[in-house]
Amino acid sequence: MRLDWIPAQRGDKLKQIDTPALVLDLDKFEANLAKMTQAAARADVRLRPHAKTHKCVQIARLQVEAGAVGICCQKVGEAEVFLGGDITDVLITNEVATEAKLQRLAQLARNFPHARIGVCVDDPQGARQLAETCDAAQARVDVYIEVDVGQNRCGVADPESALQLARIVVASGFLRLAGLHAYNGAAQHRRGVPERKAAAKHAAARAGEVRDALLSAGLPCEVVTGGGTGTFLYEAATGVYTEVQPGSYAFMDLDYKRNEPDPEWPVFEHALFVLSTAMSARGERATLDAGLKAFSTDSGPARPTFPGWRVHAVSDEHTTLTRIADGPDIKLGAKALLLPGHCDPTVNLHDWYVGVRGFAGPNAVVESVWPIAARGALF
Amino acid sequence: MRLDWIPAQRGDKLKQIDTPALVLDLDKFEANLAKMTQAAARADVRLRPHAKTHKCVQIARLQVEAGAVGICCQKVGEAEVFLGGDITDVLITNEVATEAKLQRLAQLARNFPHARIGVCVDDPQGARQLAETCDAAQARVDVYIEVDVGQNRCGVADPESALQLARIVVASGFLRLAGLHAYNGAAQHRRGVPERKAAAKHAAARAGEVRDALLSAGLPCEVVTGGGTGTFLYEAATGVYTEVQPGSYAFMDLDYKRNEPDPEWPVFEHALFVLSTAMSARGERATLDAGLKAFSTDSGPARPTFPGWRVHAVSDEHTTLTRIADGPDIKLGAKALLLPGHCDPTVNLHDWYVGVRGFAGPNAVVESVWPIAARGALF
Repeated sequence: MRLDWIPAQRGDKLKQIDTPALVLDLDKFEANLAKMTQAAARADVRLRPHAKTHKCVQIARLQVEAGAVGICCQKVGEAEVFLGGDITDVLITNEVATEAKLQRLAQLARNFPHARIGVCVDDPQGARQLAETCDAAQARVDVYIEVDVGQNRCGVADPESALQLARIVVASGFLRLAGLHAYNGAAQHRRGVPERKAAAKHAAARAGEVRDALLSAGLPCEVVTGGGTGTFLYEAATGVYTEVQPGSYAFMDLDYKRNEPDPEWPVFEHALFVLSTAMSARGERATLDAGLKAFSTDSGPARPTFPGWRVHAVSDEHTTLTRIADGPDIKLGAKALLLPGHCDPTVNLHDWYVGVRGFAGPNAVVESVWPIAARGALF
Repeated sequence: MRLDWIPAQRGDKLKQIDTPALVLDLDKFEANLAKMTQAAARADVRLRPHAKTHKCVQIARLQVEAGAVGICCQKVGEAEVFLGGDITDVLITNEVATEAKLQRLAQLARNFPHARIGVCVDDPQGARQLAETCDAAQARVDVYIEVDVGQNRCGVADPESALQLARIVVASGFLRLAGLHAYNGAAQHRRGVPERKAAAKHAAARAGEVRDALLSAGLPCEVVTGGGTGTFLYEAATGVYTEVQPGSYAFMDLDYKRNEPDPEWPVFEHALFVLSTAMSARGERATLDAGLKAFSTDSGPARPTFPGWRVHAVSDEHTTLTRIADGPDIKLGAKALLLPGHCDPTVNLHDWYVGVRGFAGPNAVVESVWPIAARGALF
């Protein structure tokens, strides 16, 4: 992150923001946070938003102020950023597999003795390594057994494997067995409501089975955590989950908006955009200064928020639009707003959020410029 | 870029590199550089490698030491990094569209009076803005008229438009009309040799027509620059191009390797890899700690360099492999090398290159750790 590459200053108008920039509609964003707080409270479930989406200390603080118990992240490097930013309850919803990272995790727990730091395990060898590292460093860490609840990515497959891991954890002097991590990422984007409901029901059944096995064996299982923006209220309704981990709800993206909406749910609205500038314009063709290095295309390209133009091609630094039907003219230097296909990897391409107040109105103004401090936290 | 997030130190073995890391096979990489130097010399064309691929001052220096006349880049921010790193001839092969960036470009030219800095124009309004900004700042900048030679992205469509731009440039007191930028990115990945040859011939015809119009009007046109890793020798052979701009040849990627090889050409080999670790392993399934935030998937996912396993799914921080046929066992903690689909946006996700000597042998050792200083140079 270079301090001389900041796209805007507080007080700037939209047209003064340099591009390509990641722009946050603060009104919509704050409304999304409030809707989530209410939804979690109404469902009587703890809210632990996933910060892998935003990678930003300022946003994590707003989530905690809005009632979240803490945040999740995926990497030790992200945990370093958030703990360093006074977020005192951080769960790494992931296994930590390399020696260097295990050492850093233990160091982190030592350096923040009053914080709560959690991590996942899904393998006896991995659990033993974690226990040895934390015991040697006298580092207190909460451990969650990851249960494969349908994604077939990480996690144990059955209660017996979980029991084996639980015994390794409780035998350690410094690890604390906190519960289960039971998340199905793929289920978030199943398009139909019935499919997402079924996936959450299946996840809860598998997690419940593992929880019951632990409790029957006299082992603790206080927390069952999981669920994302596409399913969290379904997990909450099962009674098995005590905590949910939605992340994308704060911003939303085209992929999430392709889901069939559930009329019972709050409506989270698009709050995150890539602002670009037309750097070449020739009648039926306009080329924007944002490409593969400004938004991720794994869930399709970013698309214009205005009608009459479609994405013709995306290259590293350009998106070429072609006019369809009676789209408005795009002149050289005109600003064009794009909606990202997938928010998480798009955010990871930027160093700054430009927070705009009154985004849709004539007096839109930059109110905040927040660093994406955990961008590039690969380790 | 955080100095505490460095994946390796000089002297480390492969297994000590923290993951996910961008690893460079230095022997192959240096061979690619040498082959390009020879190929350009034999074709009697100036070599100006594209640094948007690598974004690294150390690599740009090696390219210049190997005979390149300078480098290309796409953004003013990249030019800042390379000029600051003592690369004294930098061409921005792109239009600069925002007022803030035009000011930075002029400032850069003022701050590096002994360097050569080039930029493209394709619009009279843009050319006038550039001239006004540079004249006001007394900033000497080389200008290239971009010609659309088939990509339909940026560039003028005809000689008359080029003449109009040329007259604006020569009327300025501080701009120097250097020539034409005539690049067709889409042509680089046409699979068949005849199609790539035809694209280069078409590009040369269009660029030649514009060049001739400028010269006939008594205007200068010293340089015609363009051509990438997939076509550069075809452009060079036309006699129209005086300079070529390949970038990916230094690393290669799966997309380029899908091209039909031309037996007359040097063979550039894969030198860039994403090193990952198996963070969860269960028989027929192995989950690696590298996902959408460690490689770009716009040209397909990164793929394992070893046989017997295929990519099942890629998510933000994970790639799940499934065993096919008789693939070797993958144990928890095992390292797995992946070949990126598209090198440029993959590099842009990392802060460091880990350069390994003797990569394929038993004594592979980290020889260099280079910062990707222009990563995230969006502006």
